[in-house]
Amino acid sequence: MDTTDIKSYMYFVGQEARAASRLIAKADTATKNQALIAMANAIRRDESLLLAANAKDLENARAKDLEASMIDRLALSAKGVAAMTEGLMQIAALADPVGEISGLNYRPSGIQVGKMRVPLGVIGIIYEARPNVTADAAGLCLKAGNAAILRGGSEAINSNQAIAACVKEGLRLAGLPETAVQVIETIDRAAVGELITMENFVDVIVPRGGKGLIERITKEARVPVIKHLDGVCHVYIDDEADFDKAVRIADNAKTQRYGTCNTMETLLIHAEIAPRILPVLNKIYIDKGVELRGDETACDIIPQIKAATEQDWYEEYLAPILSIRIVAGLEQAIDHITKYGSQHTDAIVTENYTRARRFLREVDSSSVMVNTTPRFADGFEYGLGAEIGISTDKIHARGPVGLEGLTSQKFIVLGDGQIRQ
Amino acid sequence: MDTTDIKSYMYFVGQEARAASRLIAKADTATKNQALIAMANAIRRDESLLLAANAKDLENARAKDLEASMIDRLALSAKGVAAMTEGLMQIAALADPVGEISGLNYRPSGIQVGKMRVPLGVIGIIYEARPNVTADAAGLCLKAGNAAILRGGSEAINSNQAIAACVKEGLRLAGLPETAVQVIETIDRAAVGELITMENFVDVIVPRGGKGLIERITKEARVPVIKHLDGVCHVYIDDEADFDKAVRIADNAKTQRYGTCNTMETLLIHAEIAPRILPVLNKIYIDKGVELRGDETACDIIPQIKAATEQDWYEEYLAPILSIRIVAGLEQAIDHITKYGSQHTDAIVTENYTRARRFLREVDSSSVMVNTTPRFADGFEYGLGAEIGISTDKIHARGPVGLEGLTSQKFIVLGDGQIRQ
Repeated sequence: MDTTDIKSYMYFVGQEARAASRLIAKADTATKNQALIAMANAIRRDESLLLAANAKDLENARAKDLEASMIDRLALSAKGVAAMTEGLMQIAALADPVGEISGLNYRPSGIQVGKMRVPLGVIGIIYEARPNVTADAAGLCLKAGNAAILRGGSEAINSNQAIAACVKEGLRLAGLPETAVQVIETIDRAAVGELITMENFVDVIVPRGGKGLIERITKEARVPVIKHLDGVCHVYIDDEADFDKAVRIADNAKTQRYGTCNTMETLLIHAEIAPRILPVLNKIYIDKGVELRGDETACDIIPQIKAATEQDWYEEYLAPILSIRIVAGLEQAIDHITKYGSQHTDAIVTENYTRARRFLREVDSSSVMVNTTPRFADGFEYGLGAEIGISTDKIHARGPVGLEGLTSQKFIVLGDGQIRQ
Repeated sequence: MDTTDIKSYMYFVGQEARAASRLIAKADTATKNQALIAMANAIRRDESLLLAANAKDLENARAKDLEASMIDRLALSAKGVAAMTEGLMQIAALADPVGEISGLNYRPSGIQVGKMRVPLGVIGIIYEARPNVTADAAGLCLKAGNAAILRGGSEAINSNQAIAACVKEGLRLAGLPETAVQVIETIDRAAVGELITMENFVDVIVPRGGKGLIERITKEARVPVIKHLDGVCHVYIDDEADFDKAVRIADNAKTQRYGTCNTMETLLIHAEIAPRILPVLNKIYIDKGVELRGDETACDIIPQIKAATEQDWYEEYLAPILSIRIVAGLEQAIDHITKYGSQHTDAIVTENYTRARRFLREVDSSSVMVNTTPRFADGFEYGLGAEIGISTDKIHARGPVGLEGLTSQKFIVLGDGQIRQ
């Protein structure tokens, strides 16, 4: 396929995807599972091929002096290959969401009305670095009955093409069209511009990557986007919090992993409990090398804490840095989250029934939690099996997006000859 | 408020809506119902004021020589006022969707994960002519916990402002902010351009009107759009159809009302049953003044039928015209619907179990029906209570959009101090 004329190439890809999506939508569960298992087998068998392709990408990346963090995400290990295999096997084991019928009730007119879960059609996925997304995304889209067009980062092109060969083999062995999963074969950026504006061929775009990528795509897309912007997550420790739970959660929320979107970035503490709990937390954080930036009251309690600036409250550090604010109560905590948060994941620690209920109802984030750590905001932890991303949007899907988020529901109506009067 | 500087005016409206949406989101069910009932009472009381405002709009419309159909939709009668009142009372009687918790299950980690239904935030509604939309949309948005910005047609400005006064009175009497429902006070078209691009203040746009309006809005919007494009609805009469049901349904689907989006525009008939059923249907349609346009086979059976052109299969007539095609079977019927349909509502008439199941699964439309008329595709008939429109989109909401379509779901997680390992 000639990929130099990007417009024609993408038009061709789009047409093929739309045609394949019709066949994948009606593929039965066993056939889709057979394809997923065959993909996993091919990836397991081709481990050394995949690692060799990845080595080539890494070499190019180093020659181009790419950032260390980028190279880190690009690198595929034998463990990474095993994780892809396992991921596909897990997706095969999940219940098929397609065709699920719910709420089929009789109406006074005599017709019976319900909903049937159906695929979205064609999903475009745009991602950076991590080559494992190629297998994960292909598997999730297929199980949900969709065709997929995958556009990985140019730095991972060899790894992605090698994985794509395994994916296509799996589709072929199950008798499904190989065009059900297409990996864009050019590194020309114009391909992204085409992909996100082909409304006739693409039903939804899922971008995965840095804020820059996502903002650019959202701005230019004509196709609906399920996006994850940033994770400025909060934990609020109420004065009626259980002291031990609060310490455990505030510790875990920040220090279990620093670079994830569901890591706590700002800790809010009720003024009544702050003088008792902040010294305990301060010691834990200092021992783990976390830099603290506090408001005036926090700095009064622990003079070693650096003063936070207004900008700190908006910051997604993705690093061992934590901002701390002392608040007068629930109201002020919710106001802070509303103003500075990113509607990703926020938690309250309290034993107070009414405040827990108010926090759950009034905090407008994709995940809202009581007495546990925001680190749990994750497709696997939620039992979705796997996720294609975490949506901070309000439309269609909020929070971790698994198979269900890659489907829609249509109405079905069963009658016995009824007509409308 | 100065409405000449459109950008500043709309920014102000957006800011007010966002602030109001926070209060409406946490308003309790009784308060929202109280507001809805007070709105209904105000509209009932102000009937003569509303009719006078509408008379002014009608006078202007006639002076401007607007189309008869536009004037028709603009006209408000005493019956129309009563329908608005009744609509609001019905919305008050519906269950409150906000805060509904579902699927709260324990995970192996010990946390309990579920979903809570939440408002979308701020809904922008852009509509033409029909002033009753002002009351319906305000009521639905309020009950679903959203703030609304309404932009009616310039030709209905006096009617809409009069209805808006009643809506605001209802909000005020219930102690809710009047800014929860704002009706744009300028007829400047630039206001629409601002509304559909204020991503910080508006969460979703619902356009209601002609295809031109909707295409323009979809093209220019930066805010997600829930749209209804057109309704090219089909009925397929299978050779294993019950003859009487098929006649009854094909009649009702076309002739019960001509101008609605869920009216049948193309009738597909299996070749085996066509020679028997087409003469019967032909007589019914001719008696009711419906013009028939058929493919070659249909014209062979009834020589009086006009020949259909390729364009006819794409046409939403909204008129007493029907195109008829004779097909070889289910496969060809589904192919026709896939190619020419608008994914609105399509029905099969058959007694064959397997074909009914295949039609339900494989036809990718917002409503798919067996042995009944597409005319049932309607919020009231489906038991949604009321609808803000019928979505032909795949993302978020498909088919009639009622209260549920104006909400989203967030994850809630209840813990007892669990942390992530």
